[in-house]
Amino acid sequence: MAEHKATFLPIQVYTDMAIEARDIVRGDAKEEVPGVRVKESKSGGVLVTEVEIYEESAERLMGKPRGHYITLDVPTFQDRDADLKTHLMERLTDQLKELIPQDIHKSVLVVGLGNWNATPDALGPRVVERILVTRHLGAVVSEDIKEKMRPVAAVAPGVLGTTGIETLDIIRGIVREAEPDLVVAIDALAARNLDRLLGSVQIADTGIHPGSGVGNRRQGLTESSVGVPVIAIGVCTVVQSVSIAQEAIRQLANQLADDMAFYDILKQMAPSEQRGLVDEVLGSRFSELMVTPKEIDILIDDMAEVLAESLNRSLQPHLSANEWS
Amino acid sequence: MAEHKATFLPIQVYTDMAIEARDIVRGDAKEEVPGVRVKESKSGGVLVTEVEIYEESAERLMGKPRGHYITLDVPTFQDRDADLKTHLMERLTDQLKELIPQDIHKSVLVVGLGNWNATPDALGPRVVERILVTRHLGAVVSEDIKEKMRPVAAVAPGVLGTTGIETLDIIRGIVREAEPDLVVAIDALAARNLDRLLGSVQIADTGIHPGSGVGNRRQGLTESSVGVPVIAIGVCTVVQSVSIAQEAIRQLANQLADDMAFYDILKQMAPSEQRGLVDEVLGSRFSELMVTPKEIDILIDDMAEVLAESLNRSLQPHLSANEWS
Amino acid sequence: MAEHKATFLPIQVYTDMAIEARDIVRGDAKEEVPGVRVKESKSGGVLVTEVEIYEESAERLMGKPRGHYITLDVPTFQDRDADLKTHLMERLTDQLKELIPQDIHKSVLVVGLGNWNATPDALGPRVVERILVTRHLGAVVSEDIKEKMRPVAAVAPGVLGTTGIETLDIIRGIVREAEPDLVVAIDALAARNLDRLLGSVQIADTGIHPGSGVGNRRQGLTESSVGVPVIAIGVCTVVQSVSIAQEAIRQLANQLADDMAFYDILKQMAPSEQRGLVDEVLGSRFSELMVTPKEIDILIDDMAEVLAESLNRSLQPHLSANEWS
Amino acid sequence: MAEHKATFLPIQVYTDMAIEARDIVRGDAKEEVPGVRVKESKSGGVLVTEVEIYEESAERLMGKPRGHYITLDVPTFQDRDADLKTHLMERLTDQLKELIPQDIHKSVLVVGLGNWNATPDALGPRVVERILVTRHLGAVVSEDIKEKMRPVAAVAPGVLGTTGIETLDIIRGIVREAEPDLVVAIDALAARNLDRLLGSVQIADTGIHPGSGVGNRRQGLTESSVGVPVIAIGVCTVVQSVSIAQEAIRQLANQLADDMAFYDILKQMAPSEQRGLVDEVLGSRFSELMVTPKEIDILIDDMAEVLAESLNRSLQPHLSANEWS
Repeated sequence: MAEHKATFLPIQVYTDMAIEARDIVRGDAKEEVPGVRVKESKSGGVLVTEVEIYEESAERLMGKPRGHYITLDVPTFQDRDADLKTHLMERLTDQLKELIPQDIHKSVLVVGLGNWNATPDALGPRVVERILVTRHLGAVVSEDIKEKMRPVAAVAPGVLGTTGIETLDIIRGIVREAEPDLVVAIDALAARNLDRLLGSVQIADTGIHPGSGVGNRRQGLTESSVGVPVIAIGVCTVVQSVSIAQEAIRQLANQLADDMAFYDILKQMAPSEQRGLVDEVLGSRFSELMVTPKEIDILIDDMAEVLAESLNRSLQPHLSANEWS
Repeated sequence: MAEHKATFLPIQVYTDMAIEARDIVRGDAKEEVPGVRVKESKSGGVLVTEVEIYEESAERLMGKPRGHYITLDVPTFQDRDADLKTHLMERLTDQLKELIPQDIHKSVLVVGLGNWNATPDALGPRVVERILVTRHLGAVVSEDIKEKMRPVAAVAPGVLGTTGIETLDIIRGIVREAEPDLVVAIDALAARNLDRLLGSVQIADTGIHPGSGVGNRRQGLTESSVGVPVIAIGVCTVVQSVSIAQEAIRQLANQLADDMAFYDILKQMAPSEQRGLVDEVLGSRFSELMVTPKEIDILIDDMAEVLAESLNRSLQPHLSANEWS
Repeated sequence: MAEHKATFLPIQVYTDMAIEARDIVRGDAKEEVPGVRVKESKSGGVLVTEVEIYEESAERLMGKPRGHYITLDVPTFQDRDADLKTHLMERLTDQLKELIPQDIHKSVLVVGLGNWNATPDALGPRVVERILVTRHLGAVVSEDIKEKMRPVAAVAPGVLGTTGIETLDIIRGIVREAEPDLVVAIDALAARNLDRLLGSVQIADTGIHPGSGVGNRRQGLTESSVGVPVIAIGVCTVVQSVSIAQEAIRQLANQLADDMAFYDILKQMAPSEQRGLVDEVLGSRFSELMVTPKEIDILIDDMAEVLAESLNRSLQPHLSANEWS
Repeated sequence: MAEHKATFLPIQVYTDMAIEARDIVRGDAKEEVPGVRVKESKSGGVLVTEVEIYEESAERLMGKPRGHYITLDVPTFQDRDADLKTHLMERLTDQLKELIPQDIHKSVLVVGLGNWNATPDALGPRVVERILVTRHLGAVVSEDIKEKMRPVAAVAPGVLGTTGIETLDIIRGIVREAEPDLVVAIDALAARNLDRLLGSVQIADTGIHPGSGVGNRRQGLTESSVGVPVIAIGVCTVVQSVSIAQEAIRQLANQLADDMAFYDILKQMAPSEQRGLVDEVLGSRFSELMVTPKEIDILIDDMAEVLAESLNRSLQPHLSANEWS
């Protein structure tokens, strides 16, 4: 009775991950979502999935703008294996090198979105503090080193709740003054699938869009809003507690699916009724709660290290490790 | 059909709160649990409930040792209202003054259980850093001040995972050397009810018992294990994610309770089957996850401030605020 | 032989404090520096000195631009007396209320200069995290509260070394987007007099000028550079180690001053020779070192609390304490 | 007139470094201090000096108990060169492997002395949080891994000022319960020579002695006080400000040494008068101040990393890097 599972309770928990949006839209269908291309590869424990949304219709279906979304899944990242960290760092570096212009005269502004003082939202700022910042060194280093060094700046602009200013406005102001050729934005993401908690990195060439992130960053950070291309790197650090409630109900439903009576109750309800039921059950109650792994503080640091090293390597291909550490 | 609610899925999510244990045991019954006395009072937005377990049979039923458990509930603590903080601090001070010997020659060791580096578990250490420590000042202050000052020491012994030593062993070693007359232990608690998250303080004269707390502190910290009386102060800082899943199912069941078919499905199952079902659904999946409010970092600080000030006032009744801040 | 003291070794350790610049320029003279007015008052252990530089010639002599510089000296702040903290907070509030427009429709941007990750330079960011930020609340609060609430934003822009961007450029970009009517900038200052270490607050209506601060913030943050008035609040958190060396020599010289031979040696030297001697002795050796009190981490927090509460009170005269804490 | 230098102002700034004590005692003499053996070697930018005090008379002269003191000097550590960090880590590992029993059945307790909340004193706690703690894993790991793994515990007991209990007492209590075969204690040291600031590590097989450290840890932590051998690892994180003052005067004196008159003034004074003079000049004034590099927060972290990795390698020779990181 597998087909029941797909039809039961199709409400959508919000997700920042394109790969999850695609899984939801696609459901149990065998064909790919129209207007979407997906490519998978696996290396050293890291599953790399590239989702390309290339048609406007797909954009609407998926709720994500056209572009490339690369997901690196490492479901066992929480085990803190040093080899896996290295593999993830290397795969990330590979992917970033394809997106970041190789010409090191192109300057880059790294933006760490999120809130220092809320652990699951602190990923961006913690990456920023590990970035090799060089933009101000032009005047003081030797011509020799200068030739090998890309100008990189890095800021952690805070969040609306602590600054009182829309984060996009702060970034726009800084971009206008610092005039980078590219913005790379780091953010904490919300996922739907518990396995992605601190186990999934998404790189997107579309910037960051409304509704994204853990906190309150409502305006998009995109080429059209700041005037230069924006690469977004996100890590899933929370799952909304409603995801847990929903998954619990889904699993219960699956368990009970063989019992036709239970299935019939639900089948008799119109989809809108089903949605209303679950919203009522789950909605207001859990919206302000977050689900995180117990070891969140340490895992955020681990991940910030991986991201920063990948970025430093991709941004400064001509500098050796000693020069940036 | 209220009676369905009480009988449905009576599995027990673990709770550190005596008041929740009593609510579970009592269910919808109108009489108090035998061997238990409960007294409620309310003042300035703070609901004070005293649960006294006075018979051995009640001890077994409740899963908590005989003694007094005082719960101060402030469900709106997360709104960060300054008046409410003050009220809670004053009520806590009142309660603590009744438990802590008035004779200030009796020395006290305050123990902050938990892990500095894991926010929801950091309450104990954060209280400890705000305690007015005086035990070492005997030799340097004037006779005058010495007369008014209770000797107080304070330690944050860490957790098994970071020290490699059972926390109880560390405390026992310190108690043997420092020889306090009383230990006051601060700990983060797990509750079942989401409303208690950062909104409930429990004071117990029974010490801290196996299974308690957020982390790995398996041995009891009690008069019998350390040789001096132990007062435990706990604040609920996490709810296990299984609580959320369970509540979701319970609410769904209540919603569907009018539909006899659904109810019948469940009723046909034996209680053990019900339990097995829910364990299977919820068990392994969520056990390593925690649910916390978004603002956990700030709220833990707020609560640590309230606890520390209450303790400083109760421990040092003859010193004025200026002398300890 | 007091007159020797004034003439000995008149090299100038850099100071951010106008009051110290005036003391250096004035030396032992009985008249005030021309073009400078000084007014003193004392209340509750706080010495308030207002230095007004009103002539261009004085500007050059003092190395500080024309304007008002109010210094609040509390040499015993390090003793952590709660009453003194309250007194300082109240005096600061009085002074700030005179400088900040009473019209609460005038919006304010609080800027915390300095580096989170270097304790003595972290004052600005630590004040910012305690500021009641309201600029984004206009849409969500009741008309009633809105009428009483000034729009306040707050940012901690980092330092050149960690962002790669001149701090002034970041602030200018933010000011352009957020359009405040006034900027209040908090900074850590370097003083010459060891007694001012964590014991002195300076308020200036002239903004912040090149050479100021502990870190690398070379461009001025002034009305002419950002387009709106800038009030600067600074606290002395470091004394350059060269100050210690110099004071040691000065004291030795004073001790030996009765011995004509020593005095004669120095007197025989031309002032430029004296300066060269001391530069050689002290210069390169100590320039990268800082002198701080042992308890710097705690004292910076104490001071950040005082500054933030004074600012919150001055900025929000119609809100009660509960509403901003 | 080199001989003047040695005789001028022989007051002694306190030092925790045996190598500095020896330099002071030896002065300009060409022979070694009687009862002391010194051996130097250099490798990859790290100067290793072993001072062995082997006679009781030397013990008294040097103010340090008999034993081995190995100093690793890396004066350019503040430049943050990655190669140098690696070299220092490898040299430290070599030295530690000679002192720590190779038999991995011998259990070790690592003690991080010092105060979390005072940066220059936080080295010990910051090393402890990076130590691979294994003592509690015996029951849960495979027999295979258990065979390769030494039982290691780690604690950061705090300081007297924050606990109210003598640190030695806390450690003694923990040692009694945990029963390690060896204690390794990490501490921040005070040096006299500014070049040693964050540029010098001392390993001693004598434990830690009265007067040591930055904070208030007056009792010795030695085999005789805790019952098992104690290896002490210290890093110079502060120089007392009196060192700066003294060095300034010394340099001034050297500059003026050619001028017989100045020299004569000092020569005419009895040594005790000289001492009194300098004490008066420098004493009370600077005693509560510390001199640190501007980048102290980052440098302490760098050093904690080096120490922790050296310790992990020395303590767990049979585990690979992946297993402890």
